[in-house]
Amino acid sequence: MSDPEQQVLFPELIKKKRDGDHLTEKEIRDFVNAVRRQTIQESQIGAMLMAVWYRGMDAEETHILTREMMLSGDVLRWPQEWAGLVVDKHSTGGVGDKVSLPLAPALAACGCKVPMISGRGLAHTGGTLDKLESIPGFNVHQSAEQLRRIMEEVGCCIVGQTESLVPTDKVLYALRDITSTVDSLPLITSSIMSKKGAESLSALMLDVKYGKAALSQDIESARALAQSLVTTGSRLGMCVGAVLSRMDSPIGRYVGNALEVIEAIECLKGQGPSDLIELVICLGGCLLKMVRMVDTLASGKQAISRALESGEALNRFRAMLQAQGTSAEVAESLCSKDSDYFSVLRRAEFSTVLEVQEGGTVLEVDAMALAQVLYKLGTGRAQAGDPINHSVGAELLVRLGQRVDRGDPWVRIHYETPALTSELETILQGAIVIGKEGDLNRTSLLTEFIPPDLEN
Amino acid sequence: MSDPEQQVLFPELIKKKRDGDHLTEKEIRDFVNAVRRQTIQESQIGAMLMAVWYRGMDAEETHILTREMMLSGDVLRWPQEWAGLVVDKHSTGGVGDKVSLPLAPALAACGCKVPMISGRGLAHTGGTLDKLESIPGFNVHQSAEQLRRIMEEVGCCIVGQTESLVPTDKVLYALRDITSTVDSLPLITSSIMSKKGAESLSALMLDVKYGKAALSQDIESARALAQSLVTTGSRLGMCVGAVLSRMDSPIGRYVGNALEVIEAIECLKGQGPSDLIELVICLGGCLLKMVRMVDTLASGKQAISRALESGEALNRFRAMLQAQGTSAEVAESLCSKDSDYFSVLRRAEFSTVLEVQEGGTVLEVDAMALAQVLYKLGTGRAQAGDPINHSVGAELLVRLGQRVDRGDPWVRIHYETPALTSELETILQGAIVIGKEGDLNRTSLLTEFIPPDLEN
Repeated sequence: MSDPEQQVLFPELIKKKRDGDHLTEKEIRDFVNAVRRQTIQESQIGAMLMAVWYRGMDAEETHILTREMMLSGDVLRWPQEWAGLVVDKHSTGGVGDKVSLPLAPALAACGCKVPMISGRGLAHTGGTLDKLESIPGFNVHQSAEQLRRIMEEVGCCIVGQTESLVPTDKVLYALRDITSTVDSLPLITSSIMSKKGAESLSALMLDVKYGKAALSQDIESARALAQSLVTTGSRLGMCVGAVLSRMDSPIGRYVGNALEVIEAIECLKGQGPSDLIELVICLGGCLLKMVRMVDTLASGKQAISRALESGEALNRFRAMLQAQGTSAEVAESLCSKDSDYFSVLRRAEFSTVLEVQEGGTVLEVDAMALAQVLYKLGTGRAQAGDPINHSVGAELLVRLGQRVDRGDPWVRIHYETPALTSELETILQGAIVIGKEGDLNRTSLLTEFIPPDLEN
Repeated sequence: MSDPEQQVLFPELIKKKRDGDHLTEKEIRDFVNAVRRQTIQESQIGAMLMAVWYRGMDAEETHILTREMMLSGDVLRWPQEWAGLVVDKHSTGGVGDKVSLPLAPALAACGCKVPMISGRGLAHTGGTLDKLESIPGFNVHQSAEQLRRIMEEVGCCIVGQTESLVPTDKVLYALRDITSTVDSLPLITSSIMSKKGAESLSALMLDVKYGKAALSQDIESARALAQSLVTTGSRLGMCVGAVLSRMDSPIGRYVGNALEVIEAIECLKGQGPSDLIELVICLGGCLLKMVRMVDTLASGKQAISRALESGEALNRFRAMLQAQGTSAEVAESLCSKDSDYFSVLRRAEFSTVLEVQEGGTVLEVDAMALAQVLYKLGTGRAQAGDPINHSVGAELLVRLGQRVDRGDPWVRIHYETPALTSELETILQGAIVIGKEGDLNRTSLLTEFIPPDLEN
């Protein structure tokens, strides 16, 4: 049995955090180890999470928690010659956010190594893995060895988390979800950064979203989260920067798994919507500068832009699809000029076009309302493991700032079972905000740039 | 499966309390039912307990929680002819507190019915059941039928809690203990009053202790606890009153299970120490008045006093011992005039007398320090189920306010294995406070009386 001198008294540990005291390095390590070894009771984890929710953690505690979670499982190791080249990005989640799909191959085309370990959607948010799984044959489950081989051959891959990577985060995340302790700065930070730390990145860009359809409702809380992520990542030895981006209306014109793959490929063909392109170029440009492949942000953005326009990024995407299990024929159908996407991707059985009910200027399309309707139609899952319908989605037929007349079509909803009821249609009609042109929010999509913390 | 409309979303419930909102009657009932049926995860119970620890509960929520916990198991029912006669007392726990042992038979002698369902000691606090179990043959485990028969024949019994009485309290108490959520007013209140409510009492007196060796460190928190208990008990239909009593020095001269039985029997023979007698008479007198057996508190006190002096209470105690399994011979040996208690109760193998190290007036004997040393010598248990040594204890050889000289004996410690080390002796020597007579705390033991809340 364990030495009683070494025995950890979890009630004491919980009490300490409950009363607002600072936990020591050893105490946090003992907690994480106990979560991993299941030597702490779940009721105690629940109570500790709630105490952290109330009392928070300072930068030192957050750093230690993140590091110990990272060290609770495998940490990926890369060949010496990739030093300074391994990059990734992380978004806090938005509606229509398909940035990863064009960004990973664009960065690979510029010479980076991109081991993108992504997640699935939960509730109204989309997940990169779900989007990619609408492509026949595409396999997000790759071993560490396969991942490395794909990065050698293609330069990028987009995969799911393996069991051995940050196993304590799986436990803690599931418990946070059922104990209403998800929205805690140190817990969000440690969950995100422990996984990114285990990828052994040189540089990481964060897209921290704020607004109606984002985790952070206002820019202040987004800034606090970004700052916490940047500080914690820096202490783990990564170069981490962040942008704050608005998430009120969807990104791009398509929302829904298969539809977003189409829009991502259009972007890789140099034909993406301007807001998507802006995000891809900005995040990519920042990363190229952070790993010193370029001297200025402007030249970084130019390099990403060229990769998209030259078809180099598309080539990498095609190669990635094939390396991850999609047949050459399917990959070619998707990536050829003038693709008939629906020859490969399943099209939803039904579609309905909704019309504008009053004339004016399109001020906003409420991403949250739209996503919630799509979720009910099958785009998302209530619980991990639930099936989803990749063909369900929405196609926006108007842009923000566009003048419309009563009767103009504004959105096409693709659905199967369950059907689009009149109740859901009513919710959707409330999602488009029409008004006077002067009331248009002209704030830039990318509001603020939080530079890497080079002090640490 | 259950109707999804009826499905309880515990994350929502936890979030509501987390954010300081009032829980509805249905929500609290759903929570208690889920604890009983194990349809809520332990992590969720831990998080909810911590949220309640931070946010508290108002009188309405506390009442509902208590009532639902009470209704989660059996509720005792008494014959019609006992209506208005069934009484009990509850103490929040002290050192040397053997009040229940003389009080139950004294009340029975006055015509009350006393179904005293008691607890065991944990850490430094003593437990009534542990004390009684130092008497050979005495069985604290009695079924509801046996309990009723003993109450018919003797009028009182002192028993342990059955499995079927307030089963959710057992679950919640064990979880509070390991999640550091014990010291929460609504949780303490619901734990105590759900069990007393399940006894279907007419009247209940609470002895809420405050001071160094009490659950409540100061009189303000004791008053708040007493008020919460009185209010909640009244809403359950009981007549509930409370006294606040000081718990700095031990009650009486003996501390330790077998030793406290001796002192309790001495009290039943009319020879108890004055502080113990004061508590017994006050709590008993209040109860007699509350059930309207007497018109004034003074006549209630007189009745209890007479029961002790006449030997009537002692007769009931002897009958209770026999009814609960002790042989007539053992019961007679304990209750006869000039008993040799140690012919029946086991005497500890060793004893050591400590001497006063400076002359002056005895201002205090630190009950907490004394109890903690005795706990290490075997009087208490670290965890429920641990064995204890009934023979271990302390015999105070001085009274508060007594003048002593250097070298005078002040305490005799009875022990076996583990032995009384010099380290423990040093702690004990720090427990006696000698000073100037003028510094003696002359505050009355019973500081305040909180009358039954007759509004409810």
